[in-house]
Order: sequence, then C-alpha cells, then structure tokens
Amino acid sequence: MTDPLRLGIAGLGTVGTGVIKIVQRQANMLSARCSRPIEIAAVSARSRDKDRGISLSNYAWEDDPVKLATRDDIDLFVELMGGEDGPAKAATEAAIGAGKDVVTANKAMLAIHGQALAEAAEGAGRVLRFEAAVAGGIPVIKALTEGLAGNAIDRVMGVMNGTCNYILTRMENAGLTYDEAFAEADGLGYLEADPNLDVGGIDAAHKLTLLAAIAYGTRVDFGAIALEGIGAITIEDIRRAGDMGYKIKLLGVAQMTGRGLEQRMSPCLVPAASPLGQLEGGTNMVVIEGDSVGQVVLRGAGAGEGPTASAVMADVCDIARGLRVPTFGMPATALEAAPPASAASPARYYLRMELTDKPGALAKVATVLGEAGISIDRMRQYDHPGDNAPVLIVTHKTARPNLDDALARLPATGVLEGAPVALRIEDV
Amino acid sequence: MTDPLRLGIAGLGTVGTGVIKIVQRQANMLSARCSRPIEIAAVSARSRDKDRGISLSNYAWEDDPVKLATRDDIDLFVELMGGEDGPAKAATEAAIGAGKDVVTANKAMLAIHGQALAEAAEGAGRVLRFEAAVAGGIPVIKALTEGLAGNAIDRVMGVMNGTCNYILTRMENAGLTYDEAFAEADGLGYLEADPNLDVGGIDAAHKLTLLAAIAYGTRVDFGAIALEGIGAITIEDIRRAGDMGYKIKLLGVAQMTGRGLEQRMSPCLVPAASPLGQLEGGTNMVVIEGDSVGQVVLRGAGAGEGPTASAVMADVCDIARGLRVPTFGMPATALEAAPPASAASPARYYLRMELTDKPGALAKVATVLGEAGISIDRMRQYDHPGDNAPVLIVTHKTARPNLDDALARLPATGVLEGAPVALRIEDV
Repeated sequence: MTDPLRLGIAGLGTVGTGVIKIVQRQANMLSARCSRPIEIAAVSARSRDKDRGISLSNYAWEDDPVKLATRDDIDLFVELMGGEDGPAKAATEAAIGAGKDVVTANKAMLAIHGQALAEAAEGAGRVLRFEAAVAGGIPVIKALTEGLAGNAIDRVMGVMNGTCNYILTRMENAGLTYDEAFAEADGLGYLEADPNLDVGGIDAAHKLTLLAAIAYGTRVDFGAIALEGIGAITIEDIRRAGDMGYKIKLLGVAQMTGRGLEQRMSPCLVPAASPLGQLEGGTNMVVIEGDSVGQVVLRGAGAGEGPTASAVMADVCDIARGLRVPTFGMPATALEAAPPASAASPARYYLRMELTDKPGALAKVATVLGEAGISIDRMRQYDHPGDNAPVLIVTHKTARPNLDDALARLPATGVLEGAPVALRIEDV
Repeated sequence: MTDPLRLGIAGLGTVGTGVIKIVQRQANMLSARCSRPIEIAAVSARSRDKDRGISLSNYAWEDDPVKLATRDDIDLFVELMGGEDGPAKAATEAAIGAGKDVVTANKAMLAIHGQALAEAAEGAGRVLRFEAAVAGGIPVIKALTEGLAGNAIDRVMGVMNGTCNYILTRMENAGLTYDEAFAEADGLGYLEADPNLDVGGIDAAHKLTLLAAIAYGTRVDFGAIALEGIGAITIEDIRRAGDMGYKIKLLGVAQMTGRGLEQRMSPCLVPAASPLGQLEGGTNMVVIEGDSVGQVVLRGAGAGEGPTASAVMADVCDIARGLRVPTFGMPATALEAAPPASAASPARYYLRMELTDKPGALAKVATVLGEAGISIDRMRQYDHPGDNAPVLIVTHKTARPNLDDALARLPATGVLEGAPVALRIEDV
C-alpha cells in the first residue's frame, strides 16, 4: 500500500457532507480501487458547529479556506464552496500556488475563470478537475474528455438544469401555469437563492460552456452564449408543442460551424419520442454526437448530495490513481479562442402570437414572414373565447437573422397583442 | 511534442479498418488531445490484398499476429481479431511478454481468459484495456471503472446485444414471428456466424461478466451466468407484456446479494416507460446503479465500424496520455472469487402457458403454484379459437427455486400443452 491521498475540503454544505460520508463509509473500497487510502486531513466551512450528521472530529479545522488550501498535510484541495469569485477562487489559486491538485464542483468559477485557473494549474504541474460541475452524478466530463477522445464532436447538447425541467414537466403533467410550477419548485427548495440562475438558464449555460471547451478544444467563453430562460413559456406552448409531437426543454447546444462556435441555451422543441423528449422531472441528460461514435446519451441525477459527491469522488479517485488529464482535455495554453458564431445554425421555428381579431391580421403576419425570407410549414389559428386570436406557426428551416428580422417588423403591422414567442425546433 | 505512440494492429475487419480511418483522418486532433502523435507502425490480417478502402502502404505488414505483437517498433498492440483462443490469445500473451500494452475488443477472450491475461499484463507492468468489448461506442468501461469509482455498485444492467433487440423490436412493431424477424436480421447481416452467440445470449453474457468483475471487484466468472436466449419468445408474449405496460428485452443483470454474485442474461419484462423499455432497434443501453449516484443510464450504438473504433481509440488515447488503470479497476491479484448466487433474487414473474380446454384445468395450475409457495397477482384466460386455452399469469414476488419447483410439477397435472414460458419482471 502506498501513501494515502490526503484531502482538504472547503465547503461543508450538501456536497461536502456527501463527500465526507463516502470517504468514511467506503474507505476499504476506495483503498482497494485506488491502491492507496484516501484520507481527509482538514476541513473548512462557514460554521464549525452546525450539525451535519457526520463526525468531523478526526479532521483539522480551518476557518479560512485559503489556509486550508495551503496546509502542508494536504495533497488535494477539494473546493465545494461555490461562487464565481471570492473565497472559492482565492483558495483555488492559493492551492495551486502551494502545489496542490484541485477538484471543484464550481461551474460558475470555471465558466468565468476556467482558462486562467487551468493555465495556472498546468503551469504548476497540477491538475484541476471538475466532474461534479456539470450534470451532477453523470460522468460526462470523463466521457467527453476521455471516453470519446477519438471523435471529432459534431454537437453536444444537454438538459442540465433539473429545476427548469421540473417546472416544465409539472406544467405539462399537472396543468400548472409557469408561476404555479415556479412556486412549487421554490417551496421544495429546488431554486437557487437567485432564481434567475435556474430559470434564466445561467446555471445550465455555465455547464454548457465547459462542455464546449472540451468538445472543441476552445477557450471557455461564457459571454458568447446565446441565453434565453424559460419564463416566457406558457402551458399553451407546451400543449401546442405536444399536439405536434414535441416537448419543450431548456436545451443547451454547442456545435462548431463554418461561422464559428455556436453556443445556445434556450427553450427548444425536441421530438417527444427522443431520449431528450422523454426526460421528465429533475433528471439531467447530455447527448454527445461524434463523427465516429454517432450519438451517445448519458442520463442521471443532476444534483443532490449523493450524485454530486459521486462525481467529486470520481476526480479524487483519478488523482489517487495517478490519472492526470488537463482541465479541458488538452493543455490550456493550446486551447484556441474560437470566434463565436454570429448566428445560430438554421432551424425550423415554432412561433406563437396573439393577433387582434380583425380581417387580414393573419395575412399581414404571413406577409412579414415572407418579406423576411421565411417560408411557412404550418399556420393555424385556434378557437378563441376572447377578443384575440391565438396563432401558431411552424416555419421551414430558416436562419436566425431572418427570424429576428421578422420579429422586429411584426409590431409595425399593428395586429399583434403582446410579444410573440419564438422557439427553435432542435432535430435530435 | 513527445515521442509518438506506435500501434501494431492485428485484425483488419470492420473495427480494425475503422481504427485506421480515425488515426489517419484525425491525426492532428489526436496529437493535440494526447500531447503526442499516435502512429500506426505495423498491421496484420488474414488477407493482405483485400480492398478495405484505406491505404496500408505506410505500415509494415506481418502475416503472423504474434510476430506483429512483439515487433520492436510498436508500443501498443491492438487486438481486433476476435475469438476466445487461437491467434488472438497467443498474440495478446506474446505482446505482454514483449512488454507491450494491449487494447482489445475481444469480449469472448476476456470473458474466459480475462483473469489470467490481466494478471500477466499487470505482472509485466503493462495495461490491458477493453472499452470496445462492451456495448460498442458507449464509454461504459470507463464510466464504471473511473467515473463511478466512488460508488458501491448496487446493480448493473444492460441491453447489450443489438441483434436481439432488433429482433424483439421488429416482432413488436411489424408483427413478425420470431422466425421471420430472425430471418430478416440474418438477411441484413446482423447475426454472428454462429447465431446462438446472439440469440442464445452468449455474446451479451460475455459483456455482462466483464461489467460484473469491475462493479464488484470479482474474478470474471462467465460460467456462473444464468443464461437464457430469446428463442422461446413469441409475438403473443410481446403483446401480453405490452398490454400490462411492459416490454420484453434480453437483459443482463449483475448484482451482489447476500448469497453471492448474481449474474443473469435472460429475456425480462421491463416497464415500457423506463429508459430500457423505450430502447428500440439495435441500440445498446447500460444502466448502472450506485449507492451514491443513484441510477445512471448510458445509451449508444453497440456495434459497427465507427462506434467500436471510437471505443478502441478511447483506450489508445488513455495509454497515449499515460492514463493507466488495471484491467478490472483494481489489481487483478486483488480480485476476489465471488461465490455465484445459488438462485436469482426474488422477483415477480410472467408465465404464459397453453391449457387443454377442460373444466378444472386452471384450478390445477393454480393449485400447483400455491403448493410451490407462489401467490398469484393476476391470472387471465384469453379467448381462443382452437382447442387450447392460452393463460397468462403474473405472480407476486417469488424466489426462483419456488418457480422452478412449480414449473417442474406442472406437466404432471396433464392439462398443459407444450412448455410454459416464464419471464422475470425486472424492476428498473
């Protein structure tokens, strides 16, 4: 048996507690699998006295995570505090500076500072790993970085925010409005302190941009993501989509196009019979399409103590076993700054709008779409008890600028009530 | 850039050809991801002159794979010949003896000789990797060995023979008989030269036993698998199962029980709405359940040039990157010989039988089941144009020995026509 791998863990919330439980409960199994013991040397958190249901008495305590990160008696710093800056970043930098490897679950920090932190770690001969930052327990970082390393990646997609998928599923299955489903998710504690991180798509976008960097060997570029939340989705949209054989999902998509790297996080229509369409509730799914492998689908719990701790432990076991991979799969200094694609790749779109119930209203809308170069696959006016006529349009494949052009010109027709909803139909 | 990794590839069928295509087409990408070039030094196959649509002119040729495996100018021997013994095993042993790492897609060889080969490789300080041997392009060996290394595995399940799933799907969707669907699969070239490898479940069982060894740290024990093919399944079974909300799949299941390691490969009923139930056609799926992660589902192409070559390249890239893991996740000498579970864990069962159309026939069957300690959840006699009455029974949870006892005693009732079909209902 060789030397133990000694961990310093900062952040003892759900995930940190889960990691400690695994290390305590599975000590023998981990030691057999890694051919060396995994031990916790020291921990740090905001509150020392909080009852976490685990004993910390065998571990040194540090109030200051930066101090923890640089202790002589740790080999690996496990950052589970969260937050894109502040103590998480300071402690990660300190750990690297002190020659420690780092494992983190912090998608926000990596989405913003991933390039700099990866360069720092690799420059110091250390690894910075983050399996737990994307899609919880699904070992997707490993699958993409290593398991599919022989593939040029055509597209990577994912439903990676369980809260949004829960809200959309509840709207569909229980007939709740968006506000009702949101309130229910809030009552269950599913929402982040800033709910916009969830329903605005930011959390999922953090994850998407990390996947994109690995898939395409590019520098993390969170700012380049075309981002749209689920707040405008109504139960009507879900029903209309369902009538056509689709489900609405907050879907992240990254693909390299002739115009640059396309990164989108937005509600999309996906075929109801596809694995993505069949995904219900809080579960996550990542779909990876490679030039050799075709389509690989990974599904599992995207959050929670056990699943996220499982992902942290995957990185810990890798490091214990001497498996050392650059943060984004190739040396950080070799990652390229991909130009962001100026517009999304062409697609069919679902459009829903309310028209004033006047003769010729529909014709005016059709004319604007035609002038914008958009041809219409289906157009349907629904029964309407009130003054306005709900209209559903499915376009043929069109470029996003054409659609934006049409959306900009529609208000001038004077026949629209409120803003139209435009959702991409993603072929999966 | 460091030294290239030099491959010697034996076997230039579909998979070997696919590997060469990737190495040729993606040289720059592979070199960037692995921080060193991947080169092919030499190849071997039965026929040198066959047109494979690729140029071999830059590679040395060996008629004898053993000679290839021991050449001084290769670092890694890639065994893609197949067959559990013969040249594949001889060349693998020779490669290890000559200090080469080995990557293989050969599930049959590993299911029989995996323990000895892993010990030989590890004793020589070499690695023997086999991502391509299980579930084609799905990176499931890596997921189980590394990505879920922090989990005690509760159960690992899989639909891992695309041909069987194709036959069952065609029976259901096109109303074909088993023989018709079999003939169709044969015409499409989906069947192995010995079709029993597919429809008898042997090929899938080879894969299952490799997953079990990793999941539970046990020695590969192919002989301990309770094996049953799909030949007895009728379209009636598929329809009856469908009526109850189930699909029939050739399902492999490995789980550690209080009575030992249970390994089963048999047609099972799974809920139609589950990921396994939704799997159609030739696609593969592996479901891994861990104590921390919960359920993780992996889905992708289980065969074919691109997907299988993708899996081979995952192992090649690992070795190029210096990622070295023991064959079954922990040192082969530390793997334990698990006692095979004497019987499958209790489950509900689906029973279909034909009864002679005499008064009291159903009562006799019910009596036998009761005497065997099996309680009945549902029992239904179907309309029948002929002399016999088809009867469908769903039992409550029962132990397999009780079921076997009942099945052994049923013929003595004198009311049975033909043999009953008994299928496990697997809760997934």
